[in-house]
Amino acid sequence: MITGKNYIGEDLSSESLVNFQTFNPVLNAKNKITFFEASDSEIQKATKLASDAFKIFKQVSANKRSEFLIQISEELKLISEEITNIYCSETGLTEGRCLGELGRTINQLVSFAELLKEGKYQEVSIDNPIPNRKPLPKPDLRKMLMPIGPVVVFGASNFPLAYSTAGGDTASALAAGCPVILKSHPMHAGTGELVSSAIIRAATKTNMPNGVFSNLNSKGIEVGVKLVNSPCVKAVGFTGSLKGGRAIYDLASKRRNPIPVFAEMGSVNPVLIFPKKLGKEYAELAKQYAKSITVGSGQFCTNPGIIISFQSDNFDLFIKKLVEEIEQISPSCMLHPNIYNAYNLGLEKIKQNSNVSELTREINTSDKNFPKHVISHVSAEKFMEDKSLQHEVFGPCSLIVTCQDDKEMYAVIESLEGQLTGTVLAENNDTFLTQEIIDALELKVGRIIFNGVPTGVEVCESMTHGGPYPASTDSRFTAVGINSIKRWLRPVSYQDSPQSLLPDELKNENPLNIKRNINGIII
Amino acid sequence: MITGKNYIGEDLSSESLVNFQTFNPVLNAKNKITFFEASDSEIQKATKLASDAFKIFKQVSANKRSEFLIQISEELKLISEEITNIYCSETGLTEGRCLGELGRTINQLVSFAELLKEGKYQEVSIDNPIPNRKPLPKPDLRKMLMPIGPVVVFGASNFPLAYSTAGGDTASALAAGCPVILKSHPMHAGTGELVSSAIIRAATKTNMPNGVFSNLNSKGIEVGVKLVNSPCVKAVGFTGSLKGGRAIYDLASKRRNPIPVFAEMGSVNPVLIFPKKLGKEYAELAKQYAKSITVGSGQFCTNPGIIISFQSDNFDLFIKKLVEEIEQISPSCMLHPNIYNAYNLGLEKIKQNSNVSELTREINTSDKNFPKHVISHVSAEKFMEDKSLQHEVFGPCSLIVTCQDDKEMYAVIESLEGQLTGTVLAENNDTFLTQEIIDALELKVGRIIFNGVPTGVEVCESMTHGGPYPASTDSRFTAVGINSIKRWLRPVSYQDSPQSLLPDELKNENPLNIKRNINGIII
Repeated sequence: MITGKNYIGEDLSSESLVNFQTFNPVLNAKNKITFFEASDSEIQKATKLASDAFKIFKQVSANKRSEFLIQISEELKLISEEITNIYCSETGLTEGRCLGELGRTINQLVSFAELLKEGKYQEVSIDNPIPNRKPLPKPDLRKMLMPIGPVVVFGASNFPLAYSTAGGDTASALAAGCPVILKSHPMHAGTGELVSSAIIRAATKTNMPNGVFSNLNSKGIEVGVKLVNSPCVKAVGFTGSLKGGRAIYDLASKRRNPIPVFAEMGSVNPVLIFPKKLGKEYAELAKQYAKSITVGSGQFCTNPGIIISFQSDNFDLFIKKLVEEIEQISPSCMLHPNIYNAYNLGLEKIKQNSNVSELTREINTSDKNFPKHVISHVSAEKFMEDKSLQHEVFGPCSLIVTCQDDKEMYAVIESLEGQLTGTVLAENNDTFLTQEIIDALELKVGRIIFNGVPTGVEVCESMTHGGPYPASTDSRFTAVGINSIKRWLRPVSYQDSPQSLLPDELKNENPLNIKRNINGIII
Repeated sequence: MITGKNYIGEDLSSESLVNFQTFNPVLNAKNKITFFEASDSEIQKATKLASDAFKIFKQVSANKRSEFLIQISEELKLISEEITNIYCSETGLTEGRCLGELGRTINQLVSFAELLKEGKYQEVSIDNPIPNRKPLPKPDLRKMLMPIGPVVVFGASNFPLAYSTAGGDTASALAAGCPVILKSHPMHAGTGELVSSAIIRAATKTNMPNGVFSNLNSKGIEVGVKLVNSPCVKAVGFTGSLKGGRAIYDLASKRRNPIPVFAEMGSVNPVLIFPKKLGKEYAELAKQYAKSITVGSGQFCTNPGIIISFQSDNFDLFIKKLVEEIEQISPSCMLHPNIYNAYNLGLEKIKQNSNVSELTREINTSDKNFPKHVISHVSAEKFMEDKSLQHEVFGPCSLIVTCQDDKEMYAVIESLEGQLTGTVLAENNDTFLTQEIIDALELKVGRIIFNGVPTGVEVCESMTHGGPYPASTDSRFTAVGINSIKRWLRPVSYQDSPQSLLPDELKNENPLNIKRNINGIII
């Protein structure tokens, strides 16, 4: 049952008079449940509880934390039907999408649970002493990664499960040994509470300290601001808009004690198409891209927002086919009227540039929140003149950029802001596909995809989901895959410590039987 | 020969009319050489050159970069005599200290050169594809760490060699594949130019691109501000004061495209002494600590600034002996009158707290720049009341804090700001030494030392030199040891890439013969 209350640790609480409801975009009507925004005292209780819980939680063995994560995944499976019902009513997304995202969320939890059993994420390193070294003896030094402290996670509007309450940020932070305070996304507060109840049940069943997880509702930005400013909070994870991510980063940087923020803020994910590929496969590519641009109503951070190629008959054929294909796909519901309105506003802004021409037909969609699919076109020269054409328009649209030659394509790449992904559609032997082009693209992105689509982010160790600003606030980390745990860890060294006072990971006898770096060799 | 000019890549340049001289603190007189501050156009040239050099330098193989680092170390050895002469005249430090620091600097360069040959720092990870996976095929994903771009390094006043021109920040950034623009410290501009000439010669001899290194002189803060704001600069390394480090961090955070700053800003390095240890060894410990507090005239970021123990006869004996020992040590010259004056100002500020008593005798040092050694005392209660007592006083002084019981010691630890180090002096079986105390200390520090002194930072893989703010701006990284290279690297993934377009590190045949993580197993 959804109560509309906040989870302050394991307690449900609703002190504030500020309340709100979620919205069903398919019905274009408010949902019934009333949610209560977290009050100042609830925020303080949750952060203090997290701070106290941290001291216990960081001592909980990796194996026990692993059991906690597995239990969360089990609890989620038990309520998948309830989750699906509320998820669909709060997002306009389909049941299939919900179940896919739930599966992904569960897989993420399980992958961190497995990582914890291995122990390699702690990067244990031991340098044995050399007592008779001249001029000075070498001390015994042992190092491992330790959790950074309570983490605030901002739920993402577009992934109510996989990048929200029990999503990647939460799973990685809990795996690291950091309590999580979830700033629930107001658009799916019900889904958030339901998933939170699963986390709380798992915490209780596996004897985790109270305060290891809290879920706070928010109507506007105030709760988030207070959380980021709390002295108890040691790091922040965020997935969302550039505006939101930058605001959080600015707050965190201005603190008396600044804290790290990993904000994944999306991008326009440029796609480079090379001539030979078009000759053979233009129709197939057009079909594939019409789907990639419109999947999830274009509400993916890896949506292909810019497609770049050379002026040619084949590229014209591709564009024509892409327009045809995308016009044939039925519009699908966006998450919320605010997002639908922002999309339309973004399209309007692009139109203000008279060098951009809209290629898709003007249509009157009678269904509110069901956006039209838009393909626009601009020359590379005019694209580079107007930086605002690089702003992400969150929704099912893409801008075609036509270059005169490879030199101009290189210049377009050089003019790009930081991106999550860059995609190359090419035959291997295409003369236009040079190492210089790949090198220039690599400087701008976190992931280069060959002959595929940027949508769809595989959860595995070799994935990078992040990139140079403004794709993310710290390109040195990934938000997806097991290495995302590194965002919440810091190294601590023990010098000449007695064995009895060392963490188990660092003891001579290696009681946890983990792989360790001993004098530079992994054993 | 020292010219007083800036190195803009391999060219010596002096466009500006702003000039300055370094200072010999032993003679209390200016040195003769005139240095020219970098002009705006020189700053622009150096950053543009670094940006252009980056595109070439990042393609230079790890083996070639390794040769470059080795060559720098060789060039430094060739001019060790000239370095020693100018170093001593600009710092007041001894020849022995200079040679020790030069040795350390050379060892750091060599250790990064060795790391580059191994290849493990790139964290290569390969996930093989699963084409028939349901519901979706798993793509081929390969990841490695790539250099982040040009790095600005601020030379440190207190380590003209090991944490300045060719020091740890520069060595790690060049090892990573990032060009370096050195903001030379005005107190040792001559040493900086001489070391820069060695780097430039090494770059030329090993065919590195022009702009891989530049050295810019500065009289005040303007050059540093302009460098941090340059769009060509992608990260910053700094060692120095909290005020300086925070100013740089704030600038970098306010950029349109924020960049990471690793600022190591020092700390007061608390030392906890437990009763049983004092009973046996108070005299020996006092001698050891008198030396640690005064070594290098106390100008180390790991200087033990706070010594905490319990009220007891043995602790009184320790304090008495410490005061005796430290009074017997002759004052040694500080780096510069500004640092000497700041030290005296810091001591004055402490004195303003009437609860603090100075235990060392008032002496009149006739020698300007030769500071007095000071031991002061305060009760734990009064220490916790005045946060300003935690401010680092850079120089040969330490504050004794007396606790009533273990509860109060725990409270003192909890009240501490972030620290580079925390030291525990104890017998293993001391009943007051609890796991709670160690756990509380661990939350505050980057390194815990048992039965030693915090001064002396071993350069090895298991070292952490960094810590929670304000010890450093990002506790997730170390400034010392081979892992300091991680500050300048970011992950990039290649999805379904043709073999020919992959970096050698990621190719199937593993042409570099490096250890790689293949489907989760290191091979």
